[in-house]
Amino acid sequence: MPELRKDPITGRWVIIATDRARRPSDFTRQPVPPPAARFCPFCSGNEEKTPPEVLAYRNGGEPNRPGWTVRVVPNKFPVLGIEGDLNRQGEGLYDKMNGIGAHEVIIETPDHSLTIPQMTDSQVEEFLCAFRDRVNDLKRDRRFRYIVLFKNYGEAAGATLEHPHSQLIALPVIPRRVKEEIDGAQVYYGFKERCVYCDIIRQECSSGVRLIQETDRFLVLSPWAPRFPFETWIVPKQHASHVEEADSATLQNLGWTLRSTLRKMDKVLERPPYNFIIHTAPLQESFLPYYHWHVEVIPKLTKVAGFEWGTGFYVNPTPPEESARFLRESGVS
Amino acid sequence: MPELRKDPITGRWVIIATDRARRPSDFTRQPVPPPAARFCPFCSGNEEKTPPEVLAYRNGGEPNRPGWTVRVVPNKFPVLGIEGDLNRQGEGLYDKMNGIGAHEVIIETPDHSLTIPQMTDSQVEEFLCAFRDRVNDLKRDRRFRYIVLFKNYGEAAGATLEHPHSQLIALPVIPRRVKEEIDGAQVYYGFKERCVYCDIIRQECSSGVRLIQETDRFLVLSPWAPRFPFETWIVPKQHASHVEEADSATLQNLGWTLRSTLRKMDKVLERPPYNFIIHTAPLQESFLPYYHWHVEVIPKLTKVAGFEWGTGFYVNPTPPEESARFLRESGVS
Repeated sequence: MPELRKDPITGRWVIIATDRARRPSDFTRQPVPPPAARFCPFCSGNEEKTPPEVLAYRNGGEPNRPGWTVRVVPNKFPVLGIEGDLNRQGEGLYDKMNGIGAHEVIIETPDHSLTIPQMTDSQVEEFLCAFRDRVNDLKRDRRFRYIVLFKNYGEAAGATLEHPHSQLIALPVIPRRVKEEIDGAQVYYGFKERCVYCDIIRQECSSGVRLIQETDRFLVLSPWAPRFPFETWIVPKQHASHVEEADSATLQNLGWTLRSTLRKMDKVLERPPYNFIIHTAPLQESFLPYYHWHVEVIPKLTKVAGFEWGTGFYVNPTPPEESARFLRESGVS
Repeated sequence: MPELRKDPITGRWVIIATDRARRPSDFTRQPVPPPAARFCPFCSGNEEKTPPEVLAYRNGGEPNRPGWTVRVVPNKFPVLGIEGDLNRQGEGLYDKMNGIGAHEVIIETPDHSLTIPQMTDSQVEEFLCAFRDRVNDLKRDRRFRYIVLFKNYGEAAGATLEHPHSQLIALPVIPRRVKEEIDGAQVYYGFKERCVYCDIIRQECSSGVRLIQETDRFLVLSPWAPRFPFETWIVPKQHASHVEEADSATLQNLGWTLRSTLRKMDKVLERPPYNFIIHTAPLQESFLPYYHWHVEVIPKLTKVAGFEWGTGFYVNPTPPEESARFLRESGVS
């Protein structure tokens, strides 16, 4: 008998196929191929092929020249434009505004061929610090209400360039799915006077069945009602609403934890395409007692039918207890 | 400058790329190939290869034998089971229930090779009537709160069998995206004392820019803030909340309208894979003044990156005014 489970934050129900659970070997593997040697605008030496950098960490050298370790540039084909007013207006019963925002690329390393699992801990920490620094700069712009950091790895997960990079988008509105989380967490807090994520941490630590790893400052777990097989969350153990307020030690441990999680997935799922997304509180809010920033990692293992788009209703063929067990017992520290 | 538009029902913001709009020829075409001649459990003569029918329209002949024009059978691999109690229970802070529901296949015609555009009007009307009859039967089961009708056409849209068929799923919960619509429509009604869909119909008829076609009883339009290029809605002109209360003349006109819409898409987009989904009011509600049933048709033209999954934030490369114009001027009546 399959099981219907409710996400405790957003209230979304998901079908979990408990009886004929799909194991890692049941999915069609599409390992991301090693990078090809071709011209790449993100490689060191080709700095003039991107818009001028907005941030770079470098060991000497001039801006927009080689010598950097992490480099942030505006996206050459941004989905939103940086110049202008929001100019909110109506059109009959409809609402619109100018597509104002920032769309930047974080080039994680000058080395074209590395994956995050192959990087050093300090490289991962560095690009996370670059993200934090960009958020702290962009949040001074009062037109922006939200910033998303995300990575598409592998063509099946939406990547168009193979050089290791993540992206950030600053938006004048709060994305739908984040708003659902924030609203749901607020309702829970109104009822319980506790953060729902903190409650999840307590329950998962005590039961252990969906726990993948506990590091210094983070918990890695399979959520109770995941939409996708092997969906994994990385949650800070200490309550914090805004990722950009994380100190260096926290980002260092996050880098280690993220690398470890992706190394486990590479081992168990054979270098799958994946996305990760950081969910954090809106920019213009101060500390929120009810919201808790976290990272969602979603390997791309299944084809999603339009039915899911049309209904928001998901069938997950792998129970989170199973995916947690496979990752926990992967033999990767 | 791209434009941010807000869906007036759910409040979701979408980025519409107005400046470098993608035309039909800009998308990678993947026309659905004509069906292959291979063994098919849905073909006439193979009735014993499916579970016994729960409904069939036939010109004489015995149940589970040839002679039918439309046939409804339980899905052989259902995502939910029909037998048992819901047995709602908690697990610490989490909620779950048994995966109870119905998952049925509507075999639209005995002819393996037809597409909906190639069927006759009465064939399309017939399978829509079969859906209505199944809803009216299933709604007597008080465990079910919602029924979705959907079709996946083409492998890229999630179809696994090519014989023309749709599916229905009866659920003990209301799917997320439908609930968002119902909740949003209720808030609008509380504010305006009018149905938001009726207001949309009035505005679209008067402006005409997103109107694709007006038939006897339906309006075909590109919505104001579509998530996907060429997303198309078919909305009854008369307010009605429950599709299963539609009379035969309405279903006849819906069949005609749906065929016409899909013929336009076949012409303009070269037989694209697509999904359609009927959104209707929850089963156990009586007439709702604020909700309006409708059909959403979504051709599968773009690859969706995990970013969209993670944020619920969509970038649509084709403004609805453009897609409406292409479909309206397709030369297909």
